[in-house]
Amino acid sequence: MSYIDMSKEELIKLREKLLAEYEEKKALGLNLSMARGKPADSQIELSMGMLNILDENTQFVGEDGLDTRNYGIISGIKEAKKLFADILDVKPSNIVIYGSASLSLMYDTISRAYIKGILGSTPWSKLDKVKFLCPVPGYDRHFTICEFFGIEMINVPMDDNGPDMDMIEKLVAEDDSIKGIWCVPKYSNPSGFVYSDEVVKRFANLRPKAADFRIYWDNAYCIHHLYADNQPEILNIVTECEKAGNPDMVYEFCSTSKITFPGAGVSAIATSEANVAEIVKFMDAQIISHDKLNQLRHVLFFPNMDALNAHMMKHADIMRPKFEKVLEMFESELGDTGIASWTKPLGGYFMSFDGMEGTAKKIVSMCKDAGIVMTGAGATYPYGEDPKDSNIRIAPSFPPIDELVEACHVFIICVKIACIDKILETK
Amino acid sequence: MSYIDMSKEELIKLREKLLAEYEEKKALGLNLSMARGKPADSQIELSMGMLNILDENTQFVGEDGLDTRNYGIISGIKEAKKLFADILDVKPSNIVIYGSASLSLMYDTISRAYIKGILGSTPWSKLDKVKFLCPVPGYDRHFTICEFFGIEMINVPMDDNGPDMDMIEKLVAEDDSIKGIWCVPKYSNPSGFVYSDEVVKRFANLRPKAADFRIYWDNAYCIHHLYADNQPEILNIVTECEKAGNPDMVYEFCSTSKITFPGAGVSAIATSEANVAEIVKFMDAQIISHDKLNQLRHVLFFPNMDALNAHMMKHADIMRPKFEKVLEMFESELGDTGIASWTKPLGGYFMSFDGMEGTAKKIVSMCKDAGIVMTGAGATYPYGEDPKDSNIRIAPSFPPIDELVEACHVFIICVKIACIDKILETK
Repeated sequence: MSYIDMSKEELIKLREKLLAEYEEKKALGLNLSMARGKPADSQIELSMGMLNILDENTQFVGEDGLDTRNYGIISGIKEAKKLFADILDVKPSNIVIYGSASLSLMYDTISRAYIKGILGSTPWSKLDKVKFLCPVPGYDRHFTICEFFGIEMINVPMDDNGPDMDMIEKLVAEDDSIKGIWCVPKYSNPSGFVYSDEVVKRFANLRPKAADFRIYWDNAYCIHHLYADNQPEILNIVTECEKAGNPDMVYEFCSTSKITFPGAGVSAIATSEANVAEIVKFMDAQIISHDKLNQLRHVLFFPNMDALNAHMMKHADIMRPKFEKVLEMFESELGDTGIASWTKPLGGYFMSFDGMEGTAKKIVSMCKDAGIVMTGAGATYPYGEDPKDSNIRIAPSFPPIDELVEACHVFIICVKIACIDKILETK
Repeated sequence: MSYIDMSKEELIKLREKLLAEYEEKKALGLNLSMARGKPADSQIELSMGMLNILDENTQFVGEDGLDTRNYGIISGIKEAKKLFADILDVKPSNIVIYGSASLSLMYDTISRAYIKGILGSTPWSKLDKVKFLCPVPGYDRHFTICEFFGIEMINVPMDDNGPDMDMIEKLVAEDDSIKGIWCVPKYSNPSGFVYSDEVVKRFANLRPKAADFRIYWDNAYCIHHLYADNQPEILNIVTECEKAGNPDMVYEFCSTSKITFPGAGVSAIATSEANVAEIVKFMDAQIISHDKLNQLRHVLFFPNMDALNAHMMKHADIMRPKFEKVLEMFESELGDTGIASWTKPLGGYFMSFDGMEGTAKKIVSMCKDAGIVMTGAGATYPYGEDPKDSNIRIAPSFPPIDELVEACHVFIICVKIACIDKILETK
């Protein structure tokens, strides 16, 4: 029954019951986390065969004709470029292979724009103001990079088709201090939304006032499906930008952090050949090459897309029951209360949860007191400021399923108490 | 016999003979390189046991209590900090572990100063002028980083005790736009010089006008000896800076690139705990952690300093005959000509060679025409400008010894011809 429709007395009574349950849970001294998009131990185990895949019998001289164990090949070995080109459906010449994490690659991409500019534009460090558009709710680490570089962030609302394109088209056409937008186009962090074809096409056809405006297309979950038979596809942004006469307007990011080992993966950027040339030129001041042995491990472990897709289905088999369990608990416990809503992703690592306005901080804080660590309330918004204080990112991947159930129970109790308190304020 | 004392006729005759030899060599269609400090294949083989050291029996949860295969531990695993603390003789709390190359670490260190400043100082990007002192001859990649960030470089001469400290003390005390100095204190690149205790102490006791002045102490070759029984030690700069009341004034860099696999090593910075705290704080925008599996490979392959030192002696056994062969050829072919001088390092990857003034570019260009790639003339000076056009870096590590001998032969012929031409100009 809808909590909104309950009488004050009913709510007070229910609150007492819930509070008793909460105190009971608290007494258990739990220490559980649904905070970060961390693969579970069982997922990590899937890639163990990669760890000792290199040995004295390995062919270390590859298509580049150089020994991968020694210096050189700054932009990545050809075999790795081909792997990422296949994943992202672009040409190997559109790819630069980077280090162990796409976060560093994104940071460096912004950093180079800040220090040197993009294709001849003024370095951002020399400008009074640089702004980025941030579809919300979004990924906190994107926002942290902007804060680090003093980039002003503007919230852009999104729905299950993607961000509000009317707003984006208008803003980028008007304001040449807007230099970028962060996008997680597929299984968006945290909502799991998948950008519609129309949204991708409108992105590719943007007419920004700033020549150095770029779409920062973080395709982190491009092959991170939950289901074998329900895998939405998004349009290829690199190709669409080419078609639209905007070949240089997008940087697409991707990594194996959640395919093999977090922090010990391989990352890559896909972009126009003009952008690739500039990136590699600037990289020359920074590195001789990223870890080519780790690139080689990955291409040997994934000889083709079939091998990679089969591997991703093993991840899905571990992740899917967790997502389904959380959704089932939300549905049965909160489904008819009218106090919360949540997304139902087909992939990625997160779902987006909304309690009533003004409850998120309280929910997360109550969870913490009971030993359940959630992603910080507000973290899904720039500057950590959720204007409605309603959004919480749910990250069900890491805990084993019994712990996840326990954590969810506590979370649901906290949601109910915080929302009842909010309703009671008005009764 | 000294070429300077020879008559014009003798020189012309000798030149003809040498030119015939040169043409003969050229006709061989050689393709050899003494350009970069690249370990030889046989050195790479020394670390093959590290490649499959991780497997299903590995203990992946280390002293930090977290799985090294998953996210986290931003500043590096404790075991790796201990290894580098032992190498550099500092405390693990002075260490931040970085990615696969110290070059990136140095770049990032400069980059953070440029973007954010150092311990509260003005970011360099907001200053009109930033200058670095560059002991010469030095390492081209240091200079490239400065050029990338628009940092003006000032040459500082050095001798076999280290850089000219009178000049350095005076300049840093007077000019607060001088923010740093690049040093390779042990087996300096390219000279192989080892800084004397007095020089290190004077560095530690600098009184720079700029609070954000730092010594960029690239201790790349700290354990890269050529001999078992003749290993010069330098004073510990981190400790000396502490003693001198300048604990924050130095960043020391180090990596395993030339210990295990170039480009797939582990790098580290050693500095004061205040600097460490700031570095880790800023890194948070950039990365979740560097590759901890590669850190683990290294600590398992080098369980203690004895194992590491034994490994380095295997490198020495491969490198030493090459250095000695080059020195022997220089001595026998150029020793009494009066047209060239060179250093005789006890470690590192290079020796510094000086022909007569105004000959280096010609020598390198003639070598190139005969299929021998040397480090570019001028590369050992900021902006690629060797004011005397005399210095050439010799990198004997990569070629097998027979190829090295062949390359050296050609090089010596080119030196002789270029210097005779120079002498003839004045006869």
